[in-house]
Amino acid sequence: MADVPLSLDDVHELAFTCLKTHGCDEANANAVAGTIMAAERDGAASHGLFRLPGYVAALKSGKVNGAARPTMRTLSPGVLQMNGDGGFAPLSHQRSRDDLAACARTQGIAALAIINTHHFSALWAEVEPLAAQGLCVFAFTAFKPAVAPAGGSRPLFGTNPMAFGWPRPGRNPVVFDQASAAMARGEVMIAARDGHELPAGVGVDADGAPTTDPDAILKGALLPFGGHKGSSIAMMVELLVAGLIGEAFSFEAAARDNNDGGPPQGGELMLAMDPGRFGDADGWAQHAEGLFEQMTAQEGVRLPADRRYGNRQRTLKEGITIPESLHATI
Amino acid sequence: MADVPLSLDDVHELAFTCLKTHGCDEANANAVAGTIMAAERDGAASHGLFRLPGYVAALKSGKVNGAARPTMRTLSPGVLQMNGDGGFAPLSHQRSRDDLAACARTQGIAALAIINTHHFSALWAEVEPLAAQGLCVFAFTAFKPAVAPAGGSRPLFGTNPMAFGWPRPGRNPVVFDQASAAMARGEVMIAARDGHELPAGVGVDADGAPTTDPDAILKGALLPFGGHKGSSIAMMVELLVAGLIGEAFSFEAAARDNNDGGPPQGGELMLAMDPGRFGDADGWAQHAEGLFEQMTAQEGVRLPADRRYGNRQRTLKEGITIPESLHATI
Repeated sequence: MADVPLSLDDVHELAFTCLKTHGCDEANANAVAGTIMAAERDGAASHGLFRLPGYVAALKSGKVNGAARPTMRTLSPGVLQMNGDGGFAPLSHQRSRDDLAACARTQGIAALAIINTHHFSALWAEVEPLAAQGLCVFAFTAFKPAVAPAGGSRPLFGTNPMAFGWPRPGRNPVVFDQASAAMARGEVMIAARDGHELPAGVGVDADGAPTTDPDAILKGALLPFGGHKGSSIAMMVELLVAGLIGEAFSFEAAARDNNDGGPPQGGELMLAMDPGRFGDADGWAQHAEGLFEQMTAQEGVRLPADRRYGNRQRTLKEGITIPESLHATI
Repeated sequence: MADVPLSLDDVHELAFTCLKTHGCDEANANAVAGTIMAAERDGAASHGLFRLPGYVAALKSGKVNGAARPTMRTLSPGVLQMNGDGGFAPLSHQRSRDDLAACARTQGIAALAIINTHHFSALWAEVEPLAAQGLCVFAFTAFKPAVAPAGGSRPLFGTNPMAFGWPRPGRNPVVFDQASAAMARGEVMIAARDGHELPAGVGVDADGAPTTDPDAILKGALLPFGGHKGSSIAMMVELLVAGLIGEAFSFEAAARDNNDGGPPQGGELMLAMDPGRFGDADGWAQHAEGLFEQMTAQEGVRLPADRRYGNRQRTLKEGITIPESLHATI
């Protein structure tokens, strides 16, 4: 089957219409469609239209509130809480961003606990707009158990990404977004769909035996990246997005979930810091460029997110293509 | 040669006297000796008496101020800055701990930027006392270039540890402290001293070729743990402890350093969060125990720091031993 060409406006329209048809109101459909469009724009297919059937399943089953109205509370001078009203995460992000930025500028450092949402997208898209406003930003979220703790054999941690953004006034921020799993579950799903084998070390099958078969890993467990160090980070993410903010650990989210194919209910933590309030208000931006120059002076080294920004330049002009099978499903 | 047995009091006394003899005043000698004793107590020999010759070299060369008087400033409601007055880091930690804890309790989240110190010890010993006070804590620091960025071949990042602590009222906190390098430089130094080979993947020699020889790696570069993900974390640590707070990147610290064998001048960032201010004031402690139960229910899985706490129980009773060669040097 041939691939189907789409402009980025087409992607947004397709996602928006599909979500609106299946139970999202305009504000929620618009926010989720923006997230899907951003993923396709940056070449991150595993968080793009590929996820739309999952979003729709979660609306159809009634698990997710398509008309959610997130509400904000201030828990302490440096801590905000956004209650997502049982909706998808993107609207909560859209509506908490300016408050988090303002709090970080006033306090120097601020935290945003997002609770009662369903998160199904990439963290970089949430970090980048805040970094583009001049803030240094962390984001963490969990999911359903997919990753075995180091030394273990059964899934306990979610793929538990952590993302980080560094502002570069006048340029795209440096952003990385990486799962604590050896590979993102979305990538394993894509490999399963396309029938590709995976490298050794990505996961184990349901009996705890190493395998390179993506289907077997989806039934078994992913391994953390970097052995026990990645496992520590996966545990840390659980503690930040569940223990600290009173939301569900991955294993609790799974127990509550109806397994409709859409995202479970869970939490997210963001931290934002204003480099202008940390002791080097005038010099920080120029100073950091010195590090990036040292990095890129080494052959073979590139800055995190540079590939995404490259994809973006291309897709803004040329659009994207998606498999005809996916287009037909949507 | 036989090993020399020492009680933990002996360790403290030996370190204190040695530091005092070579230029530390009482407050600084006491703080550094406490750090060295804690490392030996917890079985972390690479941060214990093994480092004493380096501390002394830094005092003898005049690089480090043995009579440092750290001073605290409030940079914004949630950001404190401790200026270490060119001394070793432990006194700055001792004297900023209560202020950081108080700020975190008031603001919900607080940051501490430590500048103008010489850091030569482990982060867990700085995280644990704050976690024991009921706070969720991060710490980050850099060093001199030792680690090549992913894809590169020359040292640029320090070994750049990040540590995290989670409070468990009535129990020892969960703490991890891990270098962004595939192995801590201290461990490579120990292997070089003892003539042990290292596993593949730890580093490259001065020509960028993979090697298992610790001496060759000390002349070449360590690799980040977990490939490009560990490299991103090493970069993040540089940005937090230098770019954000106006201190030296590892490559800048090396350029300034006199290579006397002691620690270079540099910065550290700590973040502290009060779980009582994040939305689950009554339930957080009990809730997190559920995750730890799930982890330890899997055979082969243990909580970070459990080995150190086990060593501590033993050494508090039995003391430690150090190689006679090290004892003679001291």
